[in-house]
Amino acid sequence: MQIPSSSITRLSIYYRALLSLKDAALISSQELSDFTECSASQIRKDLAYFGQFGRPGCGYPVEDLKRELKKILGVDKDWDVALVGAGNLGSALLAYKGFKGQGFNIKHAFDNDTRKIGKVKQGIRIRDIEDLKKVIKSSKIGMAIVAVPQEAAREIIDRLVSSGIKAILNFAPARPKVPTGVELLNIDLSMELERLTYFLKRVRA
Amino acid sequence: MQIPSSSITRLSIYYRALLSLKDAALISSQELSDFTECSASQIRKDLAYFGQFGRPGCGYPVEDLKRELKKILGVDKDWDVALVGAGNLGSALLAYKGFKGQGFNIKHAFDNDTRKIGKVKQGIRIRDIEDLKKVIKSSKIGMAIVAVPQEAAREIIDRLVSSGIKAILNFAPARPKVPTGVELLNIDLSMELERLTYFLKRVRA
Repeated sequence: MQIPSSSITRLSIYYRALLSLKDAALISSQELSDFTECSASQIRKDLAYFGQFGRPGCGYPVEDLKRELKKILGVDKDWDVALVGAGNLGSALLAYKGFKGQGFNIKHAFDNDTRKIGKVKQGIRIRDIEDLKKVIKSSKIGMAIVAVPQEAAREIIDRLVSSGIKAILNFAPARPKVPTGVELLNIDLSMELERLTYFLKRVRA
Repeated sequence: MQIPSSSITRLSIYYRALLSLKDAALISSQELSDFTECSASQIRKDLAYFGQFGRPGCGYPVEDLKRELKKILGVDKDWDVALVGAGNLGSALLAYKGFKGQGFNIKHAFDNDTRKIGKVKQGIRIRDIEDLKKVIKSSKIGMAIVAVPQEAAREIIDRLVSSGIKAILNFAPARPKVPTGVELLNIDLSMELERLTYFLKRVRA
């Protein structure tokens, strides 16, 4: 069954709301709606994709729902991640402790700059991009974060895919195509900022 | 006229494609399509929102189009930005040089942690969150980046709005409502990663 991408996002929102709940055994879709600003009927619909949670009229058992969402979202285990690009953004991401707190371990980092290769940042030795395939294949990593310049993104993503990577978080301002069976998420910080300046320019004009 | 949000995103994509072009005086919507993976008809439609660029059959004049897109997107000038939250992510964002390269200057940073207040990071002195309103009003900053924990996000965003901030890039895992006339963009890195683990879990099962 194909779950709409927007439902997955909302499951993450529900999961966060439940994490912040203290001492509640049951929660109704209406209560969850108050926390999440999603409608109660939307919540019931999203959760129904994954089977029967709770009993109508009684609400959802909080601990069970939390455990189920954790499992559905795949955050019930730790994931090893490869980082490609150890420039400004890559270094900032290496330093960002939030990933580890969520069970995402940046296990390997790669760059093509000989001045960076061999250096240790945040306890991770930067490796030569030429070793990408070998390292990823032998360590069986499934997820990668791409923080390379725009012009390098397409080639790097192709190399990641052919090395067996199945899930990619891409920060490069490029949106290369990936084959079916590979999930690519693009976060382009400068494009997001341009949406804001587009708006700011209008409200300030 | 209300431009669809997806068009603004594509304008950013076209702008980037044009920046990477060397020595071309004219570009057809078909050529731009090859660079951007958006359809030629979509490109013509998006650009038509902003008036007449180029002449049918001749293509768009590259330099004019670049200049116009820059102006439309509001990146023809520098913008001062306030950062709220100088924890792991906030510090990573302070260190990220990509913002400055794009004309976004983090001018002030705020935190509520007395161990951080007064410290200088990346040349920016961390200020007391209690001074937020005063500083923002006096410096006439219109844009803010929020990198606070989930439980603080709603209050901080309310304070930013009442201080006159009109555009907010929010990295906290929360999606508070903002009044009309304020643009809020949410980037939740851990939620993005959960989309990937949701997918990974399925392909590896």
